[in-house]
Amino acid sequence: MVARAKAPEPATDRSKEGDLSKGAGLIDGKIVPIADAKLPITDWGFLRSDVTYDVAHVWKGSFFRLDDHLARFQASMKGLRLSIPMDSSDIRRELMNLVRATGLRDAYVSMICTRGSVKPGMPRHPKNCVNRFYSYVLPFVWVMPEDMQARGAHAIMAKTPRIAPESVDPTIKNFHWGDLTRAMFEASDAGADIAFLTDGHGHLTEGPGFNIFAIIDGTVVSPDRGALEGITRKSVFELCDEIGVPYQIRPLHVSELEGADELLTATTAGGVMPVSRLDGRIYGNDRPGPISAKLRQRYWQKHEEGWHATPIQYD
Amino acid sequence: MVARAKAPEPATDRSKEGDLSKGAGLIDGKIVPIADAKLPITDWGFLRSDVTYDVAHVWKGSFFRLDDHLARFQASMKGLRLSIPMDSSDIRRELMNLVRATGLRDAYVSMICTRGSVKPGMPRHPKNCVNRFYSYVLPFVWVMPEDMQARGAHAIMAKTPRIAPESVDPTIKNFHWGDLTRAMFEASDAGADIAFLTDGHGHLTEGPGFNIFAIIDGTVVSPDRGALEGITRKSVFELCDEIGVPYQIRPLHVSELEGADELLTATTAGGVMPVSRLDGRIYGNDRPGPISAKLRQRYWQKHEEGWHATPIQYD
Repeated sequence: MVARAKAPEPATDRSKEGDLSKGAGLIDGKIVPIADAKLPITDWGFLRSDVTYDVAHVWKGSFFRLDDHLARFQASMKGLRLSIPMDSSDIRRELMNLVRATGLRDAYVSMICTRGSVKPGMPRHPKNCVNRFYSYVLPFVWVMPEDMQARGAHAIMAKTPRIAPESVDPTIKNFHWGDLTRAMFEASDAGADIAFLTDGHGHLTEGPGFNIFAIIDGTVVSPDRGALEGITRKSVFELCDEIGVPYQIRPLHVSELEGADELLTATTAGGVMPVSRLDGRIYGNDRPGPISAKLRQRYWQKHEEGWHATPIQYD
Repeated sequence: MVARAKAPEPATDRSKEGDLSKGAGLIDGKIVPIADAKLPITDWGFLRSDVTYDVAHVWKGSFFRLDDHLARFQASMKGLRLSIPMDSSDIRRELMNLVRATGLRDAYVSMICTRGSVKPGMPRHPKNCVNRFYSYVLPFVWVMPEDMQARGAHAIMAKTPRIAPESVDPTIKNFHWGDLTRAMFEASDAGADIAFLTDGHGHLTEGPGFNIFAIIDGTVVSPDRGALEGITRKSVFELCDEIGVPYQIRPLHVSELEGADELLTATTAGGVMPVSRLDGRIYGNDRPGPISAKLRQRYWQKHEEGWHATPIQYD
């Protein structure tokens, strides 16, 4: 069954839903506290990680770039031959309802489409499944603590290579994190905060949940392959245009990082986050460099100004 | 919380658990009907496919090679730095209880360990998670229909390469099926039943859920790399010894398949399953070849004789 949420309920009816301030899920069309947001263990979204998703953030009561996230989610579903009887405007309405129900002003909002389960009596093939829609909302937290953002993260170049795009397309958001998880252990074992992954042939790809940028001779460079086409990355490029800094999306060899002036990461879960060390090499006097700092400051300042904002009508 | 099942209950208490004949799950230490077997949507086992598992089968009231599955499950957990406060004898007891509760005589029994969720207040890193144990039982079905096994499956060589072992170790059972799912669509688009995947460099690896064998000049050959070390594969090799057919685990180039006499697959979910066509090429007169047929026949015959069997004490 594909989840179809009810029409928004009056606030007085919502008490029976329990405390949603810690987050909520939309499961089989019902809004439930996050602790009750569960999926069947037999859903192929779990058993085969046959699933796509997207995550938007809500900041001070407004979605940021909601239409970009909805458009990418549709493209991801299409890429995996998943489909649900909801278009982007249906999904937008459900997400709005869900955030409104929690009352959260700063939040992450996840939309998920799983392969689901095989229709009774049909052969066990993904084409014979009923795909499912899930959503959940959690309070906003900094995926990278604010003090770490202020000093710049310490990164390592992981030995584990990113899953090749020929096997799993990284531009379709997916939960295939085995390589990324292994890289996170490599980082913590080395006393570092985060890991960068290569393609196994010397080119940079991405990190666990974030895009990577190197600032080389005044140009912001981000890998063209093996990485998500990040929406925060898109925001970074827009900010580059605004402050007059050139940028390039191109192959980025790890050897180029030695001569880079600054390193930077970007993700919905935390925005624009500078890096001050890579494998012991110190960048920008061991603090976020000037372009990184400016991009980060501007990214949040523009949030205040209503940049790409879709306000939520709370009760 | 790691699931800890209760001691086995007397049969009279079990009625409240509902109808378990369609399958059951062990969730948070409770036995529930399969339809109620769910996991939190926020478990990193789902959100990052940070999970390992194993599946044993029960045939005519006995587990097959249960100790092999338990040993591999322990090795898989260790490989991913997952741990639960249960040893193999604890897990064995829980699985026995669960199958007994369903009354099923032919079944699949899944044991799963997920990363779980981050402990409250701790940094978001897999090392800070409380790992979780889940299990479920489903009635035995033939993953490959019996008539297809009798004629031999029609296979294609998929264009999608298997995820490289450097990124995700295929000897640790995992749910990273993005490449395998894509290959299944390639197969159905081509009118075939199943897909074989290469490593992207001309060497055979495995298929969606099964090991692959080619019988070349009277020798059973299976790839040494990029594939699960299958327990059914191990059974095939034991049967080879028994019937006096040599076998090899070595690199297997796709070009060698042209000169092969027979092709064969093996998986817990179906046993030993012959292949009669690959990309239009017909093997063994379009029917399972003599060695394949003998291995398949013997695999099930020896089940009847109590081979590697651990009987379940039903009430």
